Amino acid sequence: MIGYPNGKVRTVQCPAAVKQSAGRRGMSLEHDLNLSNEYYLQTDRAVIHKKPTPLQIVTVDYPKRSAAKITEAYFKVPSTTDYNGVYRGKAIDFEAKETRSRTSFPFSSLHPHQVDHLERVIRHGAIAFVIVRFVLLDETYYVEAGKIAAQYRHSGRKSLPYSWFQQEGILIPFSLTPPVNYLRVIDELYFKEK
Amino acid sequence: MIGYPNGKVRTVQCPAAVKQSAGRRGMSLEHDLNLSNEYYLQTDRAVIHKKPTPLQIVTVDYPKRSAAKITEAYFKVPSTTDYNGVYRGKAIDFEAKETRSRTSFPFSSLHPHQVDHLERVIRHGAIAFVIVRFVLLDETYYVEAGKIAAQYRHSGRKSLPYSWFQQEGILIPFSLTPPVNYLRVIDELYFKEK
Repeated sequence: MIGYPNGKVRTVQCPAAVKQSAGRRGMSLEHDLNLSNEYYLQTDRAVIHKKPTPLQIVTVDYPKRSAAKITEAYFKVPSTTDYNGVYRGKAIDFEAKETRSRTSFPFSSLHPHQVDHLERVIRHGAIAFVIVRFVLLDETYYVEAGKIAAQYRHSGRKSLPYSWFQQEGILIPFSLTPPVNYLRVIDELYFKEK
Repeated sequence: MIGYPNGKVRTVQCPAAVKQSAGRRGMSLEHDLNLSNEYYLQTDRAVIHKKPTPLQIVTVDYPKRSAAKITEAYFKVPSTTDYNGVYRGKAIDFEAKETRSRTSFPFSSLHPHQVDHLERVIRHGAIAFVIVRFVLLDETYYVEAGKIAAQYRHSGRKSLPYSWFQQEGILIPFSLTPPVNYLRVIDELYFKEK
């Protein structure tokens, strides 16, 4: 059992699942996206960063001769997505989520504010999407934000089945550099020469 | 005397200066920009947010039946600018700085990483700028990031004189809603009908 926010616990996944996930590399989607964004930055392809985690800072100590130390702070619910930046002149905005389900992606992973935010940035001309990784299937999908927002608003469902991602999403093939090459999908969707 | 990070102190400004600054409203540039961005959001003109302050989280407590509490964290040097978003299809990226000098803006207010970042996002097609407020003069300037980066790199100076802002910057007139209407400057610079 692993301690978790709010005193909740989650059970450790079964050894088979651990093995499967570690089979490739066992790295989190966030880790892979950080590496990918760093790669895009170093090769000057795009400037895309993860935003810092929003915190409510309550108490800060200012000890003499050393750095200011935050001694009380809390996590805040994010009002925007985690990643944004600029690519080929376009604003890029996306959220990334992992699920350990093999059958569906629960809408509860997305905060309502994040869906509002995605709809807003689409309206203002950004390229907006959600990257969803089915951890146990080792598959990572690019989904246009408009599609997922429409399902979130109108489907009446609490989750999106895996088959929906197979139909409506675009599988991002695993590569080494970068691990999650989502710009290739964007090139295909938005910059393909006609 | 007011306690400050690293055990440094800053002297409280003289009563005349307080009066002048409070004459308008005495609000910080950050406060004014948050109000302005909120106004743009509410009126659906643009989606621009301040990024959360980057922190290095060291220790988190997970008390039962209450929210996770961060008990040790430190401020990190930002590697990007504070504000970004999307407006009229373009990526927007900027930094905002106040100075209490009446004569110049010290380059030490900008982190080298922030200047690198501004140059990068310009290269990739964002609208990038710096908003500088001369607090005691009660003047807020919009400066194209390319201009300020060129001075930062090549002027050999440690600060930019106030007169440079008068010549090269664009004074943002104070308004009530929003307090700092920088989108009007962007409209003028980038979207003026020919």
